[in-house]
Amino acid sequence: MPNKRLINWTIIIRVLSFLLIVEAFFMLTGLPFAWFYNEPLFPLMISSLVTGTIGLLILLKIGKNYSKNIGKREGYLIVALTWVVISFFGTLPFLLSGAITHFADAFFETMSGLTTTGASILNDIESVPKNILYWRSMTHWIGGMGIIVLTVAILPFLGIGGMQLMVAEMPGIQPDKLHPRITATAKRFWGIYVLFTIAEILLLWAGEMDFFDSVNHSFATMATGGFSTRNASIAAFGPYSQYVIILFMIFAGTNFTLHYYALHSQFNKLRENQEFRVYLTIIALVTVYVTVSLVFFMNTGAEKAFRDALFTTVSILTTTGFVTTDYILWPYFIWIFIFALMFIGGSAGSTGGGVKIVRHLLLVKNSWLEMKRAIHQQAIIPVKYNHKSVSKEIIFNVMAFFLIYVLIIALGVVVLAITGLDFETSIGATIATLGNIGPGIGGVGPVENYAFFSPFAKWFLSFLMLLGRLELFTVLIVMSPAFWRR
Amino acid sequence: MPNKRLINWTIIIRVLSFLLIVEAFFMLTGLPFAWFYNEPLFPLMISSLVTGTIGLLILLKIGKNYSKNIGKREGYLIVALTWVVISFFGTLPFLLSGAITHFADAFFETMSGLTTTGASILNDIESVPKNILYWRSMTHWIGGMGIIVLTVAILPFLGIGGMQLMVAEMPGIQPDKLHPRITATAKRFWGIYVLFTIAEILLLWAGEMDFFDSVNHSFATMATGGFSTRNASIAAFGPYSQYVIILFMIFAGTNFTLHYYALHSQFNKLRENQEFRVYLTIIALVTVYVTVSLVFFMNTGAEKAFRDALFTTVSILTTTGFVTTDYILWPYFIWIFIFALMFIGGSAGSTGGGVKIVRHLLLVKNSWLEMKRAIHQQAIIPVKYNHKSVSKEIIFNVMAFFLIYVLIIALGVVVLAITGLDFETSIGATIATLGNIGPGIGGVGPVENYAFFSPFAKWFLSFLMLLGRLELFTVLIVMSPAFWRR
Repeated sequence: MPNKRLINWTIIIRVLSFLLIVEAFFMLTGLPFAWFYNEPLFPLMISSLVTGTIGLLILLKIGKNYSKNIGKREGYLIVALTWVVISFFGTLPFLLSGAITHFADAFFETMSGLTTTGASILNDIESVPKNILYWRSMTHWIGGMGIIVLTVAILPFLGIGGMQLMVAEMPGIQPDKLHPRITATAKRFWGIYVLFTIAEILLLWAGEMDFFDSVNHSFATMATGGFSTRNASIAAFGPYSQYVIILFMIFAGTNFTLHYYALHSQFNKLRENQEFRVYLTIIALVTVYVTVSLVFFMNTGAEKAFRDALFTTVSILTTTGFVTTDYILWPYFIWIFIFALMFIGGSAGSTGGGVKIVRHLLLVKNSWLEMKRAIHQQAIIPVKYNHKSVSKEIIFNVMAFFLIYVLIIALGVVVLAITGLDFETSIGATIATLGNIGPGIGGVGPVENYAFFSPFAKWFLSFLMLLGRLELFTVLIVMSPAFWRR
Repeated sequence: MPNKRLINWTIIIRVLSFLLIVEAFFMLTGLPFAWFYNEPLFPLMISSLVTGTIGLLILLKIGKNYSKNIGKREGYLIVALTWVVISFFGTLPFLLSGAITHFADAFFETMSGLTTTGASILNDIESVPKNILYWRSMTHWIGGMGIIVLTVAILPFLGIGGMQLMVAEMPGIQPDKLHPRITATAKRFWGIYVLFTIAEILLLWAGEMDFFDSVNHSFATMATGGFSTRNASIAAFGPYSQYVIILFMIFAGTNFTLHYYALHSQFNKLRENQEFRVYLTIIALVTVYVTVSLVFFMNTGAEKAFRDALFTTVSILTTTGFVTTDYILWPYFIWIFIFALMFIGGSAGSTGGGVKIVRHLLLVKNSWLEMKRAIHQQAIIPVKYNHKSVSKEIIFNVMAFFLIYVLIIALGVVVLAITGLDFETSIGATIATLGNIGPGIGGVGPVENYAFFSPFAKWFLSFLMLLGRLELFTVLIVMSPAFWRR
């Protein structure tokens, strides 16, 4: 009998093929819009046909004769490859419709969609066919679904960067193994995700937006994506739409476990959750600071100042990246706070990206306790989160995550600098893509886009989006030589 | 019998008083220069008299009737207060001579000297009396001596940020207690420090520099300080002086343990020391990159390009801060590497500041191993440094140190932004003071100074210099409420 292979490729390819069929199905959902707006049907149809057929053929070829054995290595590979393969086929509608002509651009745009980043290379969004814009928003929504299953089912199982903590709160999930109940939890969260999306579509549609815009913006909101159908992003709409979007951005950046409890009227779980309280506190504090600053230093009207402040704060903190105002035109002592939010990120267990609030919370708590520990060196002083002691192992994981995050930012800035970009643009683009935000500072400010980057920089930034979205380790581990050795 | 007091203040005040007498003595050493250059003798004489008398009176008042009990709390307080008190009295020569008129300025300059930072508020250095410039350089040299005793004797004893590692290599030092042999080691290191200083004075004097300039620049070099006697810094001198200073900056940024071994011909210790190898590798790589870039993109002559590249690399990496060229006039893709060096710092156990190379080395090694650990979760995979396993406790300490360092940079940038400074200047000033470098980027670039900052910003930056020089924890712990509770 031959040696057991290190990696069970068959099961990986089978999962990816199955996901291609799912992607093909989602492509078809754009056809009604193409038909309604009298646009050519072939781009989505052919894309769907190609994607679905390839998926189906591989599935049939594999048949039922394969090992169902999924270990850690297979888990990592499935996660890392899924976003790449789905992005690859997701470029087809852009390329076939002629909306995007270069492959690097199309891949950047699709990866940006599926990682819920929302960074765009499109100079004139409104000239793109509606059904292609729909597909663009749909990549966000698919990405959001992917993130939910990733967070609930896969990251805790792989033990990455303290994500065990997030699910420790959820009944029926044990972080140490892939429990059948996890599927149930993922489905429950998808239910919440769909519910919020429908609610937002209806509320937006009830205002000034037409059905098409309502659907697109709801997809982008709930995934904390940030693609809009308008060149002016959300500045193209009035206060009502903006407030609705603010509300749902806040929902999207909240741990879905809390939505589950809220739906079951267990509101004490929300009150007790420290990450949720810090999340709301940050939003409140930055909004107040920015509002007051805008009123006093920029002579903005009170309501407009409050709305811009709240919208921008929530949009950046949740890593959505929708825009109602050009914040880098604000004085530096205002936008530095918006810039600081880019390093924080959404809540764990939400669709938001970035470092995540819970990690910062644990790091600050631990730094604080380090002082205590230095004085009382005999005492064991654990970090507490939601009234429970957090193991030193998890703190270690979280610290390692953050350090690698900082290291990647530093490397990202240096790489972009070498391609000839200036300081602010290098930092802005690195943090905005790695944190899955979209707009940054400098040349990638809120009213700019990523069209002017070199193809190399676009591939590099696509890679940063992938790294950030998959919590760094999933991608880095697959790239390490140790992974490929027994 | 009354409760034993939490803190033995008498011993703390006694140590500080003793150090004031030492400071008074060092002030007197500037009198020959005042006499030689026909400058008023009273500033240094009165400063010395006031400082020494106060120290002496307190010592006499305390007498021999005090508890000799020094615990951790007393250790922290002595360290944190020493730099503040010595800085306070160190302002006297500046103020009495009229060279500096505002107290905030004088304190900034003295703290900058004693923390071996080298950031200056003087607009015209050459108009300052020679004996006051000597005192300014002397604050560097005193600071350097302080750092040596801090590193050898106090930090390992307090167990701060992995500094145990540095002394683990040194015979006769046990990090867990204040051993009498530690005094011997400190004296040995001071001997090396004095030896290098004398050697540099002689070598510089043998060139174009006069005795006064040779002494001043040698003090500033060996302390990795950066104060010069010339407005143009080291650009005022020729290639010979520059190469001599480069050599001694490299010595000053090296772990003094290695000098000790080199003097005892144990060169294998140098070869085997991983921090030393990384230190030389960074210098070599950045120098080559900058040299080649300057030759190709700036049409600089080969020797000049190499000399500027090597000088700037060594000066910033060792946190000296001497300047031969205005590096922020270089294209951004060149100076970003100089900027990156600001986050690295010198070797542990040297007079260099910043994060220190060994910490980065451990963090990078640990991040790399995190990948391995994620795949082989049963295996215990320790970080190795110089062929020995490093305890998880030390890695934890180092991570906490680095995270707090990053946090302080973030807070520093935000605070400076609120005072109205631009992005690059905020980052530049924060990292250049916290890292004890001196010159940064933006408004505090290599040919600028810190005169234009508001008094608040000057006090704040003085605080950052203190924080950075005392390895963060020493100062932060004293500021934490837990420190003052039983």
